[in-house]
Amino acid sequence: MEQSIPNQLPGTIKSITSDKVLSEVIVETSIGEIASIITTRSVQEMNLKPGDKVFALVKATNVSLRRA
Amino acid sequence: MEQSIPNQLPGTIKSITSDKVLSEVIVETSIGEIASIITTRSVQEMNLKPGDKVFALVKATNVSLRRA
Amino acid sequence: MEQSIPNQLPGTIKSITSDKVLSEVIVETSIGEIASIITTRSVQEMNLKPGDKVFALVKATNVSLRRA
Amino acid sequence: MEQSIPNQLPGTIKSITSDKVLSEVIVETSIGEIASIITTRSVQEMNLKPGDKVFALVKATNVSLRRA
Amino acid sequence: MEQSIPNQLPGTIKSITSDKVLSEVIVETSIGEIASIITTRSVQEMNLKPGDKVFALVKATNVSLRRA
Amino acid sequence: MEQSIPNQLPGTIKSITSDKVLSEVIVETSIGEIASIITTRSVQEMNLKPGDKVFALVKATNVSLRRA
Repeated sequence: MEQSIPNQLPGTIKSITSDKVLSEVIVETSIGEIASIITTRSVQEMNLKPGDKVFALVKATNVSLRRA
Repeated sequence: MEQSIPNQLPGTIKSITSDKVLSEVIVETSIGEIASIITTRSVQEMNLKPGDKVFALVKATNVSLRRA
Repeated sequence: MEQSIPNQLPGTIKSITSDKVLSEVIVETSIGEIASIITTRSVQEMNLKPGDKVFALVKATNVSLRRA
Repeated sequence: MEQSIPNQLPGTIKSITSDKVLSEVIVETSIGEIASIITTRSVQEMNLKPGDKVFALVKATNVSLRRA
Repeated sequence: MEQSIPNQLPGTIKSITSDKVLSEVIVETSIGEIASIITTRSVQEMNLKPGDKVFALVKATNVSLRRA
Repeated sequence: MEQSIPNQLPGTIKSITSDKVLSEVIVETSIGEIASIITTRSVQEMNLKPGDKVFALVKATNVSLRRA
């Protein structure tokens, strides 16, 4: 393991909505859609677009639980 | 929708490891294991144990992306 | 307890300011105003508007302290 | 304003529970108890103890909402 | 220490890009540029502008690690 | 850029303090010490130890500012 972020969910970008500062990237995964907010600067520097394969990364301290 | 946390991943608790203050709960989902750090107080008040059905909740601002 | 987010502060929405991606919701509570940043998509799906009763949710790991 | 963290809730420390790395500090406020997880190192360097007056600080991007 | 946020990196504001709700502030430091997303309301209330001296604050629970 | 986390600070691990669930890793950098809280499981899987070269990663939405 190269990185301390344990949760890495594979998926495909479905859509990107951008303001000047932040963008919402919707990632389609086998467990449903994951919404990610990243800087529009990152969207541009990574050259992200619909159809790209990505991992959604989540630090374990940022995961809460509720009963199903 | 009753709550502003868009990412809610269904799964089953596989294991719980606890210190006095915080616990690591591993949730088995259809997309792989999700690690969650919550307070041991919450584990006790929710009476969580292996086998329980839960949703892992992640605020969209806490999701990063990397290229696959 | 149904959910592992221990801090739930009751209040009433005072105002909502929206960009395309994110919105700032100001919640009036008995201890003062609480600012919350959520996705504009959540504002729409929850149909939030001024005057609505809500809880502001904060994970314990996201609370810092400073001396008064 | 000297700092970009808009949510600052005044209260009094009710209890502190510590592991080696992290501590849970319960702050009694006029709106109820607020749980805060900070490093045990910070508890020691700030010399925090029950009865101390503090502010609980929460960045606006870390506040979610649910309907009451 | 007056505050439980251990990581405080000194620098100078290089640029500010604002939408209505959130702003990206780029801080030039001796270790490189640090990007910070804060509310546009905070930018205005703190009257931040390029050239101002600031500290970038990061809670320890929000720092991940990867191998160099 | 392969990843949407813009802030990546290079340094060397100075010390690691571990409970069962979480560990505090102190990283020495050219701008001072950075404290990082990651799971003890990650410390073990990455086989981290003092002297290792790492990057401290911080999502831009987790950086606050205060006036110097």
